[in-house]
Amino acid sequence: MARQSGLVAAFGAIVGAGHVLTAPSDMAGYLSEPRDLYRGEALGIVRPASTQEVAAVVRLCNESRTPIVPQGGNTGLVGGQIPDRSGGAIVLSLQRMRALREIDLASNTMTVEAGMILAHAQAEAGRAGRLFPLSLASEGSCTIGGNLATNAGGTGVIAYGNARDLALGIEAVLADGRIFCGLSKLKKDNTGYDLKDLFIGSEGTLGVITAATLKLFPKPRAVETAFIGLPSPAAAVALLDLAREKAGGEITAFELIPRIGLDFVLAHVKGARNPLAARHEWHVLLELSSQNAEGLGPRLLDMLNAAAESGLVEDAAIAASEAQRAAFWRLREHLSEAQRFEGGSIKHDVSVAITDAPAFLEDVQNVLKEAAPGARLVAFGHLGDGNIHCNVSQPVGADRAAFLARWDAINEAVHAIVIRYGGSISAEHGIGQLKRDLLPQVKDKVAMDLMRALKRTLDPQGILNPGKVL
Amino acid sequence: MARQSGLVAAFGAIVGAGHVLTAPSDMAGYLSEPRDLYRGEALGIVRPASTQEVAAVVRLCNESRTPIVPQGGNTGLVGGQIPDRSGGAIVLSLQRMRALREIDLASNTMTVEAGMILAHAQAEAGRAGRLFPLSLASEGSCTIGGNLATNAGGTGVIAYGNARDLALGIEAVLADGRIFCGLSKLKKDNTGYDLKDLFIGSEGTLGVITAATLKLFPKPRAVETAFIGLPSPAAAVALLDLAREKAGGEITAFELIPRIGLDFVLAHVKGARNPLAARHEWHVLLELSSQNAEGLGPRLLDMLNAAAESGLVEDAAIAASEAQRAAFWRLREHLSEAQRFEGGSIKHDVSVAITDAPAFLEDVQNVLKEAAPGARLVAFGHLGDGNIHCNVSQPVGADRAAFLARWDAINEAVHAIVIRYGGSISAEHGIGQLKRDLLPQVKDKVAMDLMRALKRTLDPQGILNPGKVL
Repeated sequence: MARQSGLVAAFGAIVGAGHVLTAPSDMAGYLSEPRDLYRGEALGIVRPASTQEVAAVVRLCNESRTPIVPQGGNTGLVGGQIPDRSGGAIVLSLQRMRALREIDLASNTMTVEAGMILAHAQAEAGRAGRLFPLSLASEGSCTIGGNLATNAGGTGVIAYGNARDLALGIEAVLADGRIFCGLSKLKKDNTGYDLKDLFIGSEGTLGVITAATLKLFPKPRAVETAFIGLPSPAAAVALLDLAREKAGGEITAFELIPRIGLDFVLAHVKGARNPLAARHEWHVLLELSSQNAEGLGPRLLDMLNAAAESGLVEDAAIAASEAQRAAFWRLREHLSEAQRFEGGSIKHDVSVAITDAPAFLEDVQNVLKEAAPGARLVAFGHLGDGNIHCNVSQPVGADRAAFLARWDAINEAVHAIVIRYGGSISAEHGIGQLKRDLLPQVKDKVAMDLMRALKRTLDPQGILNPGKVL
Repeated sequence: MARQSGLVAAFGAIVGAGHVLTAPSDMAGYLSEPRDLYRGEALGIVRPASTQEVAAVVRLCNESRTPIVPQGGNTGLVGGQIPDRSGGAIVLSLQRMRALREIDLASNTMTVEAGMILAHAQAEAGRAGRLFPLSLASEGSCTIGGNLATNAGGTGVIAYGNARDLALGIEAVLADGRIFCGLSKLKKDNTGYDLKDLFIGSEGTLGVITAATLKLFPKPRAVETAFIGLPSPAAAVALLDLAREKAGGEITAFELIPRIGLDFVLAHVKGARNPLAARHEWHVLLELSSQNAEGLGPRLLDMLNAAAESGLVEDAAIAASEAQRAAFWRLREHLSEAQRFEGGSIKHDVSVAITDAPAFLEDVQNVLKEAAPGARLVAFGHLGDGNIHCNVSQPVGADRAAFLARWDAINEAVHAIVIRYGGSISAEHGIGQLKRDLLPQVKDKVAMDLMRALKRTLDPQGILNPGKVL
């Protein structure tokens, strides 16, 4: 206890006593996460206001062998941002570091601190007449630092890449408290190893990202959004191919929605309505964006007509207003939430090569018939990136707890199929605690060895987010 | 000698005796490079035919502490592919590994071996109706493995990124001979650290890349190319901004050409002619590509008219045929070669933030006036990426050798300006031998320490391309 209170005082001397939270009620919001799958304990929540303060805190942790759990908006879905129950770690909250350091229109870059909320970064770009295209469900509370630490994905990846692709440079604090100054506006810089990408996606286990220089894009002049009914995932993949051929880089969303998912949303989300007259087995939310204000609408129409003629598309609605566009997107965005009303749901954030997606989905459906009779597969998401959220809702009327108790078994069955297709068991959410023990079973052994060697090299005392990823 | 001939025999047992070259005349082509800045000696040239053979060769080198210099097409510009003069190393030529392992149209990927020549990769993609957009001067002889090892750039980076951005996955042999199986068609895979990007751009010092899964793109339906006369680099940057605003992702080339560079080409390259009636201080080669066959030409014309009205553009020619387009490109492509006719030339492959490019060029011009009176700055290249090749031709009539003897001093003067702008001293060519001693002077100290730590971790015996990068 004396050691603990000494440490708390030392952290307070760095960040200000008021920015070290130790009262259980003050800490509660940092020690569990929205889905309440993980709860932890901590010595305290330390809230630095600058990179120098982060460095001093990390240095002190390194000297005192105090584990650090970096945390942004606490929206992660795999428990990466929550400490274990030992109570020996600190949560290092980056939330006070939310400054816009610079926006450079000619270079199309924006340098922000790690704690800036994603929606604020989008808004700052928008105010400057630019687009910052990272977009995901939790954008109102997740932070840029967390987005980069987890290499976040979302709906814009098909056109703009994931978080990694949107960062030109980063600043990070290493395990010994040194500051890696890797902020850069340069698109081309071949002076040595790619250090930036080692920290991005490492979930805070190799360093603490404190700031980043992000790419900006021109705001699209024209956006066209279609809600499309199709017979099958194979038709959706063929439509994607056609869309690529006809519209190339203009495709800014290609989201798959199954009939059952739409039914759940229509049943449980107030104001939701089907844009199409009939029911279809599958749907695609397709969005095209262009700098060229003219011709995008007719081109989308032509594409859909061509797809209809070859039997790929059964019906389609094109948004005639911004309100209609928003209504289409709400159907997509509420898919996960609507499942809550249908009882327990077992999640899979997986990806396969796009070409394999139809066969993969069929195999998953078949395996579930045996492994979980009556369970309802709600397979949706970023088909344009091969990333499908295979969420499995419990059978109608089944016992929720009994169904959820089968989480590991059902994961195992689905992941076995993913592995068979050379896919990924975590396309965009990361490993965190949730998939840590699974990782060595599915990952190339040499890759695992390399990861462990990198961890030892960059964090020899193992203070950075221990128990996560590895 | 006994040890050497024993090793040669052992390599021969792995790859076949005929594929270990030891006669000086057989080795010559592997031991110097086109510009003849570097010459080396070797124990032998070892030419494996498979990843397994590479692994066995590397294992043997690791056991016998024999340095390995991996080599692709031997086109590198910084000496990374040439051994030192000790004669103790082997050159590991990947040229026999040139198979197309798979092309997957639905996933838009192509898996090729490291020794495939870039132009062949482009052609394979083209035969399948796709585009592989990496394009650089040496594409007829450089290899995919070398492109990835050096993170090659070229003229398509503005639209498609550099080599790193075009690789979804790689296969590589580690220093101890283990094979890292990181081939993947997945666009999204957040299962642990980004290992691929550690090897890409490490110039063979962390592992030997043996194969890669590359991204393919649809072939553009329409391409429009303009040769534009402008008053200044500032006008070129403003034109780029305008082009981004009007044509966003359709800009597939934005190359800067100075008056003196065009004059050199017109004087020395047979058949070259100025597409514009008058002479201009600066030029831009602008190319737009689109999946939409219609409207691109008129849109380019509108953009140029708008730019002319605001004084950014003085004159412009739009290619009316494929032959004309090729003629425009020849002017750009011969800039470097044409300089040879003007005597010695001191090269700088640098980048700065695009917004800084005009002031940077002015500063370079001013510094050269003092540091090398009469020397002629030929600043050209990928302005759309902030990457400018600041080549300095000797004063008219000056002594070539005396001028070239000032290489280091003039480099130092130019690099000092690059550093002041937070730029890169190697935008696309890498570090190799040429800039190895310079690197610690310009790079963040913590970054250097990290690089050294990674090198020790991945190649503890220091057998992989020693003396390069670090």
